[in-house]
Amino acid sequence: MTTQKTGLVISAHSADFVWRAGGAIALHQKQGVQMHIVCLSYGERGESAKLWRQPNMTEERVKQVREQEARAAADILGATIEFLDLGDYPLQADKEILFELADIYRRLQPGFVLSHSLHDPYNYDHPRAAHLAQEARIIAQAEGHNPGEKVIAAPPFYCFEPHQPEQCNWKPDVLLDITSVWDQKYQAIQCMQGQEHLWEYYTRVALQRGVQAKRNIGIIAAKNIIYGEAYQSLFPRVTENLE
Amino acid sequence: MTTQKTGLVISAHSADFVWRAGGAIALHQKQGVQMHIVCLSYGERGESAKLWRQPNMTEERVKQVREQEARAAADILGATIEFLDLGDYPLQADKEILFELADIYRRLQPGFVLSHSLHDPYNYDHPRAAHLAQEARIIAQAEGHNPGEKVIAAPPFYCFEPHQPEQCNWKPDVLLDITSVWDQKYQAIQCMQGQEHLWEYYTRVALQRGVQAKRNIGIIAAKNIIYGEAYQSLFPRVTENLE
Amino acid sequence: MTTQKTGLVISAHSADFVWRAGGAIALHQKQGVQMHIVCLSYGERGESAKLWRQPNMTEERVKQVREQEARAAADILGATIEFLDLGDYPLQADKEILFELADIYRRLQPGFVLSHSLHDPYNYDHPRAAHLAQEARIIAQAEGHNPGEKVIAAPPFYCFEPHQPEQCNWKPDVLLDITSVWDQKYQAIQCMQGQEHLWEYYTRVALQRGVQAKRNIGIIAAKNIIYGEAYQSLFPRVTENLE
Amino acid sequence: MTTQKTGLVISAHSADFVWRAGGAIALHQKQGVQMHIVCLSYGERGESAKLWRQPNMTEERVKQVREQEARAAADILGATIEFLDLGDYPLQADKEILFELADIYRRLQPGFVLSHSLHDPYNYDHPRAAHLAQEARIIAQAEGHNPGEKVIAAPPFYCFEPHQPEQCNWKPDVLLDITSVWDQKYQAIQCMQGQEHLWEYYTRVALQRGVQAKRNIGIIAAKNIIYGEAYQSLFPRVTENLE
Amino acid sequence: MTTQKTGLVISAHSADFVWRAGGAIALHQKQGVQMHIVCLSYGERGESAKLWRQPNMTEERVKQVREQEARAAADILGATIEFLDLGDYPLQADKEILFELADIYRRLQPGFVLSHSLHDPYNYDHPRAAHLAQEARIIAQAEGHNPGEKVIAAPPFYCFEPHQPEQCNWKPDVLLDITSVWDQKYQAIQCMQGQEHLWEYYTRVALQRGVQAKRNIGIIAAKNIIYGEAYQSLFPRVTENLE
Amino acid sequence: MTTQKTGLVISAHSADFVWRAGGAIALHQKQGVQMHIVCLSYGERGESAKLWRQPNMTEERVKQVREQEARAAADILGATIEFLDLGDYPLQADKEILFELADIYRRLQPGFVLSHSLHDPYNYDHPRAAHLAQEARIIAQAEGHNPGEKVIAAPPFYCFEPHQPEQCNWKPDVLLDITSVWDQKYQAIQCMQGQEHLWEYYTRVALQRGVQAKRNIGIIAAKNIIYGEAYQSLFPRVTENLE
Repeated sequence: MTTQKTGLVISAHSADFVWRAGGAIALHQKQGVQMHIVCLSYGERGESAKLWRQPNMTEERVKQVREQEARAAADILGATIEFLDLGDYPLQADKEILFELADIYRRLQPGFVLSHSLHDPYNYDHPRAAHLAQEARIIAQAEGHNPGEKVIAAPPFYCFEPHQPEQCNWKPDVLLDITSVWDQKYQAIQCMQGQEHLWEYYTRVALQRGVQAKRNIGIIAAKNIIYGEAYQSLFPRVTENLE
Repeated sequence: MTTQKTGLVISAHSADFVWRAGGAIALHQKQGVQMHIVCLSYGERGESAKLWRQPNMTEERVKQVREQEARAAADILGATIEFLDLGDYPLQADKEILFELADIYRRLQPGFVLSHSLHDPYNYDHPRAAHLAQEARIIAQAEGHNPGEKVIAAPPFYCFEPHQPEQCNWKPDVLLDITSVWDQKYQAIQCMQGQEHLWEYYTRVALQRGVQAKRNIGIIAAKNIIYGEAYQSLFPRVTENLE
Repeated sequence: MTTQKTGLVISAHSADFVWRAGGAIALHQKQGVQMHIVCLSYGERGESAKLWRQPNMTEERVKQVREQEARAAADILGATIEFLDLGDYPLQADKEILFELADIYRRLQPGFVLSHSLHDPYNYDHPRAAHLAQEARIIAQAEGHNPGEKVIAAPPFYCFEPHQPEQCNWKPDVLLDITSVWDQKYQAIQCMQGQEHLWEYYTRVALQRGVQAKRNIGIIAAKNIIYGEAYQSLFPRVTENLE
Repeated sequence: MTTQKTGLVISAHSADFVWRAGGAIALHQKQGVQMHIVCLSYGERGESAKLWRQPNMTEERVKQVREQEARAAADILGATIEFLDLGDYPLQADKEILFELADIYRRLQPGFVLSHSLHDPYNYDHPRAAHLAQEARIIAQAEGHNPGEKVIAAPPFYCFEPHQPEQCNWKPDVLLDITSVWDQKYQAIQCMQGQEHLWEYYTRVALQRGVQAKRNIGIIAAKNIIYGEAYQSLFPRVTENLE
Repeated sequence: MTTQKTGLVISAHSADFVWRAGGAIALHQKQGVQMHIVCLSYGERGESAKLWRQPNMTEERVKQVREQEARAAADILGATIEFLDLGDYPLQADKEILFELADIYRRLQPGFVLSHSLHDPYNYDHPRAAHLAQEARIIAQAEGHNPGEKVIAAPPFYCFEPHQPEQCNWKPDVLLDITSVWDQKYQAIQCMQGQEHLWEYYTRVALQRGVQAKRNIGIIAAKNIIYGEAYQSLFPRVTENLE
Repeated sequence: MTTQKTGLVISAHSADFVWRAGGAIALHQKQGVQMHIVCLSYGERGESAKLWRQPNMTEERVKQVREQEARAAADILGATIEFLDLGDYPLQADKEILFELADIYRRLQPGFVLSHSLHDPYNYDHPRAAHLAQEARIIAQAEGHNPGEKVIAAPPFYCFEPHQPEQCNWKPDVLLDITSVWDQKYQAIQCMQGQEHLWEYYTRVALQRGVQAKRNIGIIAAKNIIYGEAYQSLFPRVTENLE
């Protein structure tokens, strides 16, 4: 059990958390929230094309490189990280994994959760990860699962941005201002040596979301927002203030 | 121009703001936000059945009673109120009204706006009011509308709960805890002498939304929520914190 | 005021009711329900291509022919019919027409209403007619509209089948067995001399809906269904029986 | 094979049928339909929080209590009940269970089926149960499944109301008047000793659905409706009458 | 590896490709594209009712007849065909099958893919086949799946028409003119001796889609279209021309 | 009447066509299609903030500058342009404008049409323009509108990209490769002196759509795509080829 506030990131492959949630991770870490990343797989089969084009590559070697890159990125963002090594393309999904994730939920008692979108016609592992994350959250709430353990409450669940948002029927309802941690995020991005083609793509995503955030602010003299990250929340927000 | 924070409520008929947003009005008022209610019509034709069943009733008389009831309710909630008297069933909707509403937006510079849902197969005035409120908000942002006036920023826009929510394709993403102001809201509700059949209906709505709010809280030892109001937001929320 | 049960059909152009609701009209008439058809326009501009290709054609002449065809079809189906002559492409839609339709609702006190689908990218008059029909129904329910008149209850509202159903986001939830009145419907269809190209199209529609109706029956030894009409209902059905 | 009319209720956990379909069960039973309930699990892990807070509780004991409560409720409603004990959180779902349910469909030849909504972000067992119920219904229609047995027709399939309806994208299209059997339903509800917090919640649901049913009736002098249950149907209704 | 252009059709049961894509197969074959059909099952349990009604029928015999019919139809359409014999009602779906399909994708390097709709409340095998086809396509794109093999590009993926299109939330965005190959398609249809009741149903489907195709053509003097097939594409089309 | 192929662009404000369709215009012009732009308004009130911040600005002067910029951009793109001066915020929309646009359709006989998205909560003029464009297209197809004139066929209708695509429920199904004309488009963009803050925003949009186009190509050795424009089509495409 933890007394510090925590946030949980559930990433299908070992690089997803960087492109999609690196800003949120660094930002909350800075705010005193302990961020923990769970990589369900290394993305060794489906998201390591550049590595596989090297001579004499093996799956074991790909996994090692991917783990090193992800650890380096997590360090820069200030988060802890663990790897479940479930395999990718397809990502394994069964009862044991639900229970393993439920244990993590219980251990961390997260204040919020970040994971993938619920649909993605380009990537079946991503929604599968999101569904695992969602169902494990429900199991971790159940008194009858490992009775005696402290159950979790109902942490908000945010879906981070997929690669082709409209095709995934993903509609953001939260724009996170990550301007203050952009340097950290971009440093973390640069750890992903095997996916250099995505560096500038996700920089542009951050700039677009930054412009959009500025367009949606209620107060004119608002501070300058340059970089943003977008999220879709799955549950209604409970609040006492609508401003 | 105002220096105090303000919130704007745009109500199709003179009682809508009570059932649907009475809690939000009282709550923000208590938090120091000046709440202002605009009633586009008195609901004199379509939502005053009980009055019309009285002998010798006239439209003028219905309007008077409806205005008195609405003023009394606004007083209890601590809000200012004005009446545009646009007629109902159907609610008038044209360019002049857009400009009148845009003037109100500019004068108030609201931090947020509350109005109706975008669809309602049982009531065409409600979505019409919501669209007027939305388009006027856009006009009030335009530099070329009454050049020289201070334009508004992009205040969040929340759709309050319609009478039969699922039939309106309305899906709440905000649950407001109104437990602390419920007494005030119920007092305001009781001003609506002509619609007594709705008092208990909307009390039950508040209790259901209260239970749902408790079900969606991230932290277990949360304070007790008994009454709630639900809203659907039209624009993404800009924030630096996902907890 | 009427004591016989009635059904109301609101048709944008003077032939729509035949293709789309001819079976329902004949069927209910046979069951003792008085069916009344309101043609908002003659479809003189947009749905009379064949007539316009005749020499020396005028709008007045087109209207006459269209009215004759529609009257003949209504006779065959056993329904009464009236023509509002609002013009088509675009169909006129204003407050006066709402009130005229509301008067018809009040006069007829219909047990159910049939009109067009809410969307149609190929035909803007059709959804406009449906919205007029829907809003007039609401106005006819309002005590303050022509106080003293008998208001209407909440008659079920069914959208009949548009020409290209999937493109209109129209999804039928009612399949009406019109086998017993198909001959009458096909006779009525044949009154539409100017649109002969649609006769076989809508015969095939009826056959497909017939097959689908058979596929959705709960009891195996059901009587034979050959022809059907499909509808989308706008409001929940109130019942005491789910069989 | 049965000659009496039957209805089938497929409930993910042993109490779901009470809150969500208790009225429909009692009502049809009264109309001479034999109602049969299948509880896929006892809800022993995920929906028995109060029991787990008792000292020395075991899963076996939780199941026993839950079974007793469910049997008592079924008795009050006049229905037969069976328990498949598939485990919950997560609910087991495989080919064997599909076949077991298909056997039940064939044995009962139900005139209609009630089960859960197709989506529920708060509860993965509920939609899983609905999909099992739906796919088993299809298998029971297949001539090649246990050839020689009597296949079933196409019984209507209704999704009953989830706990937070809008969040489940569940939209009711049927409102069932359960006023005449409310006492029975509330008695059955009171059997659920472990979930007392839901008694008043679902009483309010019944009252709201009752009000809504009254709002959707076509005929003004309709009898009084106080309590309702709402359903979403999955297939089009086949009928000869639209009133 | 192939140098000829190829198209891949993935059919849940052995007759689906005929009703739903027979025109596309013949048409592209004529245009010099090698069309290959994969039948995941024979539809021996769920779609062979007529055969099962014959005396002394066995599953083995049903499969043989179904294979013969499908081979005959494929011959007429000019396509190659293979059978995976995965069983139906329910269709088997696991990692091994994904890999088997991925191998087929790699071997064929198809320029486009045809399979089922993503939803079908009447048939769970159909969407299951579509999801297998979609996920296998993704796996075949992954460098780390059988490293060294030539990965595939991103072939367009079209969902063919289900039996009751609106109930499947299937919305066509492509209308294929199959007039020139209709005779071949109808000959292929006639190979399906066990499903004669569908011959005229799908002839009418082709005629309706033909009429609709004519309604959606940009140029008036277009050649005559009589028969059509409709498809829903899952991915955006990449082009240099919008005409 | 024209013998050259033509394309029609209907732009709510005088700069929209540049950001949203500049690539399509230049590309088709290069392919020999005569592109014609209709600007419904100058965007003088709502989209000229920078001009209004200059001293002594008048609406007349704003319109002049906006027209000059738009003409310069159209010249660079090689298109003809006309201005209807209907006013903006709100954009005027009535029967006369429908008829004026219908005349343009008839005069041009366009092979395809480009206009705005059907929804935009940030901008009511944009969907209003799209609906005018759509309904005028229907009127221009009607034989009875100005009888004797040559009616138009059914030109494909594409909605171009709004500023915040997901918030507009806009989902692109066409990705246009505009790499070969990017220089022209960027030159045209630079004519918009009053909206310099959008130059880089829409450059990034073009780069993202370029990457996405590459991700959706069926053939691996495809030529390099760097810049793209995305469109949503409103009607099904009629074709004889699915590759």
